[in-house]
Order: sequence, then C-alpha cells, then structure tokens
Amino acid sequence: MAAQPVIKVVALCGSLRKASWNRGLLSASMDISKDSIEGMEIEYVDISLLPFVNEDLEINGTYPAAVEAFRKKIEDADCYLFASPEYNYSVTGPLKNAIDWASRPPNVWGDKAAAIVSAGGNFGGGRSHYHLRHIGIYIDLHFINKPEFFLNAFESPPKFDDEGVLTDEESKQRLREVLLALKAFSLRLKGKLSE
Amino acid sequence: MAAQPVIKVVALCGSLRKASWNRGLLSASMDISKDSIEGMEIEYVDISLLPFVNEDLEINGTYPAAVEAFRKKIEDADCYLFASPEYNYSVTGPLKNAIDWASRPPNVWGDKAAAIVSAGGNFGGGRSHYHLRHIGIYIDLHFINKPEFFLNAFESPPKFDDEGVLTDEESKQRLREVLLALKAFSLRLKGKLSE
Amino acid sequence: MAAQPVIKVVALCGSLRKASWNRGLLSASMDISKDSIEGMEIEYVDISLLPFVNEDLEINGTYPAAVEAFRKKIEDADCYLFASPEYNYSVTGPLKNAIDWASRPPNVWGDKAAAIVSAGGNFGGGRSHYHLRHIGIYIDLHFINKPEFFLNAFESPPKFDDEGVLTDEESKQRLREVLLALKAFSLRLKGKLSE
Amino acid sequence: MAAQPVIKVVALCGSLRKASWNRGLLSASMDISKDSIEGMEIEYVDISLLPFVNEDLEINGTYPAAVEAFRKKIEDADCYLFASPEYNYSVTGPLKNAIDWASRPPNVWGDKAAAIVSAGGNFGGGRSHYHLRHIGIYIDLHFINKPEFFLNAFESPPKFDDEGVLTDEESKQRLREVLLALKAFSLRLKGKLSE
Repeated sequence: MAAQPVIKVVALCGSLRKASWNRGLLSASMDISKDSIEGMEIEYVDISLLPFVNEDLEINGTYPAAVEAFRKKIEDADCYLFASPEYNYSVTGPLKNAIDWASRPPNVWGDKAAAIVSAGGNFGGGRSHYHLRHIGIYIDLHFINKPEFFLNAFESPPKFDDEGVLTDEESKQRLREVLLALKAFSLRLKGKLSE
Repeated sequence: MAAQPVIKVVALCGSLRKASWNRGLLSASMDISKDSIEGMEIEYVDISLLPFVNEDLEINGTYPAAVEAFRKKIEDADCYLFASPEYNYSVTGPLKNAIDWASRPPNVWGDKAAAIVSAGGNFGGGRSHYHLRHIGIYIDLHFINKPEFFLNAFESPPKFDDEGVLTDEESKQRLREVLLALKAFSLRLKGKLSE
Repeated sequence: MAAQPVIKVVALCGSLRKASWNRGLLSASMDISKDSIEGMEIEYVDISLLPFVNEDLEINGTYPAAVEAFRKKIEDADCYLFASPEYNYSVTGPLKNAIDWASRPPNVWGDKAAAIVSAGGNFGGGRSHYHLRHIGIYIDLHFINKPEFFLNAFESPPKFDDEGVLTDEESKQRLREVLLALKAFSLRLKGKLSE
Repeated sequence: MAAQPVIKVVALCGSLRKASWNRGLLSASMDISKDSIEGMEIEYVDISLLPFVNEDLEINGTYPAAVEAFRKKIEDADCYLFASPEYNYSVTGPLKNAIDWASRPPNVWGDKAAAIVSAGGNFGGGRSHYHLRHIGIYIDLHFINKPEFFLNAFESPPKFDDEGVLTDEESKQRLREVLLALKAFSLRLKGKLSE
C-alpha cells in the first residue's frame, strides 16, 4: 500500500519579537502537527535577516545569499502557513518584505495552498488576513477559506503565557482544524484527495 | 498682511532602488513645488536605514536612534506625500515598516492630510494606494480623494529617462494638481481655507 | 452672537428588515442627537423603494421619480451616517444600489463628511466599513477615522431588544461619540471649527 | 473510454442595461465555449427580477419564488463566471444582492471555482474584482488567480459594437484563456485533473 505523501509546510511569522503571540501560534502548530497530524511537516523559516527588497541588490540575475536561501525554502514547500499579526490594519513590513523577495522572477510561491492565523487585540489580527489574501492573488496562492483563525488574546480565559506560548486548549483545537484544512486543500490541489 | 503659513510636506518612497520611477515622482514634485507652488516645502525622508519593526528594540520606552530621528520628521510635518509602488498588489515592505515605526506610541502621523502617487506597469501602481488608504484609517490620515495619480510608465510617450527622472510634461502637470490638492486639503483641515 | 449652523445628516441603513439592529442604531442616533447634541439634525432616508441601478432607466438625462427624490436628499445633506451591516464581508446590495444612484452624473455625494456604524455577530459588521470607505474614495466622501463603531450584538450584556431598539447604555455613549466626531469633522471641512 | 464530465458554468452580470459591455463579455464567452471548448456549458442567469434581500421576506424557512429559482441555479452549477463592472470602485448593487440571496442558509455557492471578467474605462473594471474576491472568502468560492481579465473599452482598437457585442479578436482570445483556466481549476478542485 502506497504511503500518503508528506505535505511540507513552510511557516512564516510577521512579528519579530521573541515572545510574539503569533510566533506562539506557529510553535503550537508545529507541536500539534507532530503530535496528531500524519503526513504533515511544518518548518519555521526566519525572515528577520533578509535585507529590504531593492533591485539594486540583484547582481547579474542573482540575489543576496540570505535571499537565495529563503527563496529555496519557499520553492521547496508544498504550502504555507502565515502567522500574520495586524499592524495598522495590514500585514507587517518584514512579512511583506519576505513575500516580495520570493516573488522576484521567477516567482517561487506559485500555485500552492496557504493558510493564515493571527492573534492580537480587537479583531484578533483579522484585518491583516484580507491584505495578505489580496497579495496572494498576484503571487498565485490559494488560501483555504475556512476555518479562519483570529484570536483575541485579551479575552478570558488567557490564551498565552508570558513567553508567548499558546496555552488555551480551545484555541489549540481551532488551530488544529486550520492545519487539517490546509493539508486537505494542499492535497486536493495536487490531485490527491485525502480519501 | 499676514503671510500664508508654509505647509511642510514629508515625502516618502516605497522603492529603495536608485533609479526608481517612484523616487523620480518625488524629485519632480520637489522641483514643481519649488518652481510654482507658493507656501509648500517638500522634504524627502529616507526610510532605508530603519531596522525592521520589533518591539524588542524598544528599550525603556525609547526607540533606536534612526527610528527616533524618523519619528521626529513625521511628527513635525504638516502632511505627507507617499510615492507608493505596487509590489504584489500592495505597498512595499520598507514603506510599511516605516509607517509602522511612526505609529508606535505615541502615533506621530495623526490627523493630517496625505496624498499618494505611483508609477509602474499595468494600473500604474494603483492597487497599492488602496492598501495604503486602508492603513491610513488606523494611523488617522486624511487622504485627498482627487485627483488620484497612477502613471503607467510603459505607455507612450516615454515618462522617465534612464535615471528615473520624470520627463513627461503632461505627467508633471497632473503631479502639480496632486500637490495643489494636498496643500489645499492640509490648509482646510487646519481651519485655514486657501482663499 | 451668530448661531452655529445646523449640520444636516442623512442617515441610510443597509438592512431592510423591520427589526434590524442596524436600523436600531440609526433610531438611537436620532434620539441621542435630539436629546443631547446641539446643532445637528438627522433624517432617516429610506432606500428600499429605489429600482436597481440601470442606465436604461435614465431617459433624456432624468432619473426615475424615486431616484430624483433620493438624490435631492443626498444633495441637500451636509454629511452622512451609514448603518452598514456586513453581508458576506461587504456592504449590502440595497445600500450599494442607493450609493450608485446618487453617484450618477452629477455625483451628489461629493466632498462631504461621513461616518459608519454597524452591529452584527463576529466583528460587529466591521468588514463592511472598509468596503464602504473604499467606495467613498470615488464618490469623494471624507470619513471620520475615529472612533470606529462596530457592535457585536451577541456579547453580553444584551444590546438590543426584540424590536431592534438599542438598549445598552455603553453602546449609546459610544454612538454619541461617533455623532460628535461626525459633526466636528463636518464643520471642520466647511471651514467652521467647532470652537 | 469514459467521457470527460461537462462543467456547468452559471454566468452572472452586474450590469442590467441591455447593451452592457459586461453582458457582452458573457455572450462572447458563451459563443467561445460552444465553438471551441469541449466539456463546458455556460448558462446566463438573470438577476434583475430578484427582490432586495430582506429577511422579512423569508417565510417559514422559504424564500420568494424568484429567489428559490435563482438559488437552484446556483446550487446546480459546477462553477461561476462573473461579469462584474466597477461601480464606484466596487461591485454593483444588483450583483451583491444576488450573491447575498444565494448565501442565505444553506449557502449554495460553497466550495466551487469562479472567475471574474470586466470591461469599463480606466482599470477596465479591475477594482470590482477585489471586492468580489473578498466577498468570495465568506461564501467559500475559489477564484482562479490567473489570468485576470480587465478590459479598457476606450482604448483603440474598438472592443465592442453599439449593441455591446465584443468584436475585438485579441480580447476574445484572452477571454478564452480565462474560460480554459476556469474549467481546469474546476476540474482540479473536483479531483479530476484535465489530463
């Protein structure tokens, strides 16, 4: 009996601070995936060391070394998990910068599945999702529509501890459903229905 | 007779490359303003040396030196002129990063007029305007609605020379109308109707 | 001593059902305005009897009678208050239809202040605001940026009674702040600072 | 040898006027499909006779007859083709109204492929696409990302005749590519790769 292929997910976080809740959502996703989702591997890829996008840095059709390494990670992934906090009603600068580097020719995002999660006050980061989905049109991502995951981190019960670790069980369960939907949509787009 | 106050405009560019068309729109704006618009001073402020936004860099309520200097420029301006190229249907990472630094508490953008110009292929950068306007809601900018300025740089006649200098007279005229509208709206918001 | 001018507000509701929460926000606004805001009159204008926008209905440069009457109301107002429920992440069809009729040449919305309020589940109707603001660019509205008013009607304490009447005091207070901001911004745009 | 399944497309037009360019794009699509695309049937569905969305019209869980008939068409389709003109930077009222009726419980749009085409001045209707895609998140549509089809009808050579019939061969070819992409994406989502 043929083994189901393993879906390789690259996880990117829009916030750079150490105890970031959004980073915490990705750590929790990696734990959940390891513990209870077969056929899915999530790799966190750091975006903090990329230079600002600037065509003057593209020399003879090559990109700076950090950019080449980042682009390779994006190209090799089957799909993407974005933890996208809302900064001023949109995605963060570092995340947009990373997205733009990987879209430089040839675009290495193309035609893959993606999902977005976020935590924050108010709408739980929700507004950033819609800018990210709009960006995804051009770089050719196919986002799962449901479930959407916004987490208002200020509502009780508490969601994160002081180090940004997700502790709320209900949120973990919702996160798991996002991951399952991402896996299923990725397989579906590849022509491999989960069952 | 009392002199009309001088409107101080800070101009920011989303593209960092030297021969950027969008940078060219700002240079042309500065020339036009000097030559034919009384009571308006445009200062170009570089955003390329800011670090990525990261709360861990905020020590005892102070920001890194480059950030403090940038925030001071934003705070002292009467209004803003954004040259916002469209990268993947949105604003660029470096521009978003700069916007976010100046919105950290206390937000230094608040309650001022702003205008957007852009050049590019296709819609001439137009999609980036709408993300920037959406961002402006939270940081409390009041954008002029008209005229909008998108420039398709690939249509004939040529718009820019090889160094990114705007050479097309019709585009310069349209740019001048944006500057006049920005000046008038800034005065209006300050309770000083232009005449 | 010259009396302050009275700001005439036209109020429009995106929902047509009788016991609509969003209609309830407008009724409450009218009560609040009458009771405690000097110099502001809110008139509710019904949009349910307009035909669908269709240029074939424009005969010799005139609009159907219901449309002409509606356009006159819009033209005579100083500013606008939209109660905009979120239907499928955007404004409702009837509201968009009304907006479009009043934008037919000559656009009768132009260059005035506006505010948006909404009630609903989840984000309290918030996503509709951003589509409405985007629409406002072209018809040349100037929306207040703050405060934004989204009301999650499912959170306790209860917000509305069974007839859609707003009963929650804190929400009324927040609504009052929106009205005061709308009045102030309308006066400011007219060159008449509130004090 | 098993026949390929026939993809049933429902085509909706946001403009109601008879000689609408956007209606012309749908007519051309139907001709192109009949002439040169195997396994695809496009049915134009009129939205002009639907009442405005209003929950008060929902009696004992049933919808008005025109609404029920419309919902049946949407439910039976495999995917959707929207001709979405840009009215004030968004979709039209009648189109939004139709979309909302079909989303009332149970949502009958869910989990299907869709494509958008438009004609107009300026960006050729482009801004309406992004509102429609945003709406599609909640009703669970999967839009093709490429190719996007915006047609500036004022650029030479002429694109339409006086009755709104698409006459420009290059535009027909671009339209055909949209239809092929829609068919392929619809098959892919169904787990039936075109080959």
